[in-house]
Amino acid sequence: MPPRGDVIEEARRQWRERWGDEPVPSMAAVTSIMRAQQILLARLNELLRPWDLTFPRYEALMLLHFSHRGSLPLGKMGERLQVHRTSITNIVDGLERLGYVTRVPHEHDRRTTLAEITDAGRRAAVEATEALNAARFGTEPLDDDALEALFETLLPFRAKADAFDVEAAPRA
Amino acid sequence: MPPRGDVIEEARRQWRERWGDEPVPSMAAVTSIMRAQQILLARLNELLRPWDLTFPRYEALMLLHFSHRGSLPLGKMGERLQVHRTSITNIVDGLERLGYVTRVPHEHDRRTTLAEITDAGRRAAVEATEALNAARFGTEPLDDDALEALFETLLPFRAKADAFDVEAAPRA
Repeated sequence: MPPRGDVIEEARRQWRERWGDEPVPSMAAVTSIMRAQQILLARLNELLRPWDLTFPRYEALMLLHFSHRGSLPLGKMGERLQVHRTSITNIVDGLERLGYVTRVPHEHDRRTTLAEITDAGRRAAVEATEALNAARFGTEPLDDDALEALFETLLPFRAKADAFDVEAAPRA
Repeated sequence: MPPRGDVIEEARRQWRERWGDEPVPSMAAVTSIMRAQQILLARLNELLRPWDLTFPRYEALMLLHFSHRGSLPLGKMGERLQVHRTSITNIVDGLERLGYVTRVPHEHDRRTTLAEITDAGRRAAVEATEALNAARFGTEPLDDDALEALFETLLPFRAKADAFDVEAAPRA
């Protein structure tokens, strides 16, 4: 076996040589997050394959599963999941084809469409969650301390984008 | 201003109620990484807009910029960037349309196509890097300690997927 290198260690070296130490931590952290996300997404999509879910579809399904009425306007789903209108439309289309969601008109506002979780959608949500929980969401080999550190470190970064009105929060 | 909540804190509460403490750290870390990646990607693409680059295009361009000969086989680029063959083809198509890259046949193996960085590509690589460095790669408000912690914590997670043969590493 030849000695192994790491693409980001290599980038750090290149950066330090050309642009000095100052930008190295941000470049290395950002590239690490991008790469971790790619690896996680592949693992999660593989774990979710038995339900024909992808991780974005799973997140949307859980949002509905946890919502007070089992339904939410598409616009609000997009806000919560921080995805564009076209993306949430595609995600809900996919869930609808699978029979996990149906589109229903809003009770008081005909221009608003709600996505509503079906019984099959609730079963898939619970089963898929049990599979992800058992696989620790594909985070191997990270331990709980490392996982908590990631959550805590990213909290101030996410804070503004992920904040939402508590008034509008789903109630259990 | 109403009090603010956090979507992942909300998910932690829901998880703990239904599935106990055990899966909470992995769910929260994975969801945090996914959200951080979305926020970063939006900021980076905005910073890269003056060069018509996206972050995946920028990463591919830097790989060529740092390579020994200024060119690499598309297959090797895909391996290094951990993206599928079709993705790297699309990325190189985009860079070629911008005049940052040209496709050339491999000297010794006609079946292999190389992407080669152009002078305009090298200028864009340097200018875009200076912009990203100045903006700390969109990581505000995280400080260097937080950024180093992210890099270090994710290192064992990325280790296997990102390792490459040092033999094949680009030499400066």
